[in-house]
Amino acid sequence: MILTVTLNAALDVTYLVPEVVLHTSHRVTAVHERAGGKGINVASVLHRRGLEVLASGLVAGLSGGHVRRDLSRRGVPHAFLDVEGESRRTVSIVAAAGDATVFNESGPQVDRDGWRTYLEQLERLVSQRPVEVVVLSGSLPPGVPVDAYAQLVAAVRAHGARTVLDADGDVLLAALPAGPDIVKPNRQELTAATGIDDPRAGAAALQRRGARDVVVSAGAEGAVAVPGDEPAYRGRLDRVLTGNATGAGDAMVAALAAGLARGRTWPQMLADGIAWSAAAVLQPLAGEVSSNDIDAMTPQVRIEEIDDTRTP
Amino acid sequence: MILTVTLNAALDVTYLVPEVVLHTSHRVTAVHERAGGKGINVASVLHRRGLEVLASGLVAGLSGGHVRRDLSRRGVPHAFLDVEGESRRTVSIVAAAGDATVFNESGPQVDRDGWRTYLEQLERLVSQRPVEVVVLSGSLPPGVPVDAYAQLVAAVRAHGARTVLDADGDVLLAALPAGPDIVKPNRQELTAATGIDDPRAGAAALQRRGARDVVVSAGAEGAVAVPGDEPAYRGRLDRVLTGNATGAGDAMVAALAAGLARGRTWPQMLADGIAWSAAAVLQPLAGEVSSNDIDAMTPQVRIEEIDDTRTP
Repeated sequence: MILTVTLNAALDVTYLVPEVVLHTSHRVTAVHERAGGKGINVASVLHRRGLEVLASGLVAGLSGGHVRRDLSRRGVPHAFLDVEGESRRTVSIVAAAGDATVFNESGPQVDRDGWRTYLEQLERLVSQRPVEVVVLSGSLPPGVPVDAYAQLVAAVRAHGARTVLDADGDVLLAALPAGPDIVKPNRQELTAATGIDDPRAGAAALQRRGARDVVVSAGAEGAVAVPGDEPAYRGRLDRVLTGNATGAGDAMVAALAAGLARGRTWPQMLADGIAWSAAAVLQPLAGEVSSNDIDAMTPQVRIEEIDDTRTP
Repeated sequence: MILTVTLNAALDVTYLVPEVVLHTSHRVTAVHERAGGKGINVASVLHRRGLEVLASGLVAGLSGGHVRRDLSRRGVPHAFLDVEGESRRTVSIVAAAGDATVFNESGPQVDRDGWRTYLEQLERLVSQRPVEVVVLSGSLPPGVPVDAYAQLVAAVRAHGARTVLDADGDVLLAALPAGPDIVKPNRQELTAATGIDDPRAGAAALQRRGARDVVVSAGAEGAVAVPGDEPAYRGRLDRVLTGNATGAGDAMVAALAAGLARGRTWPQMLADGIAWSAAAVLQPLAGEVSSNDIDAMTPQVRIEEIDDTRTP
């Protein structure tokens, strides 16, 4: 099974309004609420694909209760630890398709005890179940140590589980010494973390710090996989898509985790990642994919081994 | 004791942000949550003034749980009925003092059973306790009959309680045939409901439809009391205040309810209403007043009987 970790789970609240006029009052015509956060999106995609998954992480307060309730409604198995405070809400004000003004809360203040309890809970979950892969995704709530993902990678490796990491900035860099199996930054995150624009050179920089395999996603331009012990691959979709890019990266991470659990080859995993990600773009909500869309996209993905004599 | 009715209780959420830029994402620097709705503000002011009060009404879902929790934290006694759905949230985005962009949810959909259960609960509360005055304030959630306040006025009168009504539009007009004891529109609400600008003529129109006494508030310009069976009075504060007008009307309603319960005269009640309302303007949050401020304001309130030979 695949276990996802969402330390800063969110309640995503969307307000539809006819238009937004600053400094005035608005009647909200519709409210949508949904559990969010990268790890939750990954778990949701894996569940949609029929894989056995367990969503874990930290939730807090009444908004944390909403997160749990929404996951249950969607049928996604979950085992979150309750901590003090309130899970962050993200409020998106939407007046027209694709036009959102977003307000992000920061999340609960997690103390040392809360963090230690979660580490213990995760070790228990991984030791009691046949967990092949643990997915570590997203930002950290206040109070959690910056090397949280390094601690989690070390803890789950002791039980034989492999790890996929999707983080950025200092949190990404602090996780690398623990040796995560796959690290998936997007190009902006890679450049921000390493100062390097080129995907393969940036991936190599992450590998020097401890990452084993690196996949760099680049939206409509596809993705580059830089495994630690075989050639690099470049993949892209032979087609231009329009839609909702939110959650596309999470769908790619889900595909990589599924491939790692099933022992798929790198060209297969990269193709899956691009196809699942494209299917996510066609859905209005993050965490959703249609299997029909994935089946339709898969033959349109082009994968090529990168010729080492050329710049990728 | 005074019982307040808040049929569409709110969870008021305030997000502080450095600035608001439409179509972008914002990190919220502070979140404040507070139980809101006119009746709840009235109960809170009465509680601050040391009067015995019970806040009642409808709450729903997890945001309703927040409303209850906040009232308990503030020490305001409450007995809300739980209905299906979610209590409305109002989200105010505040980038600078006095500069709010507000998003209002509509509230839970109340079915016929929910409404009947509340009517029965209110009758039980009023019959089991020494309730002198019932305050009926604010908007109705979807599904509640437009003549809800008429039904409540009739129900509590059967138990000897008097009523203060603060509503507007059709909800105000539909309540009048039941004969509420005091009706407190502001000038805009009075004009909207009656088509009449003049406070005394507008008040008379409400009285022809069934209201007994009418108080018309006009912000910094004070207020006019038009009792059914004695001369009218005009009152105003001998001083210009700057501050937060939200909740000032609720503080005036609280003063009128307290005066009705204690048998104060109309000049006293009008003076109290203006002083409490002014004290509310000095507080950053609705539902708060300082007794020191009320003591300081009271000598500065001027009340005069309106000379019937002049236009008020």
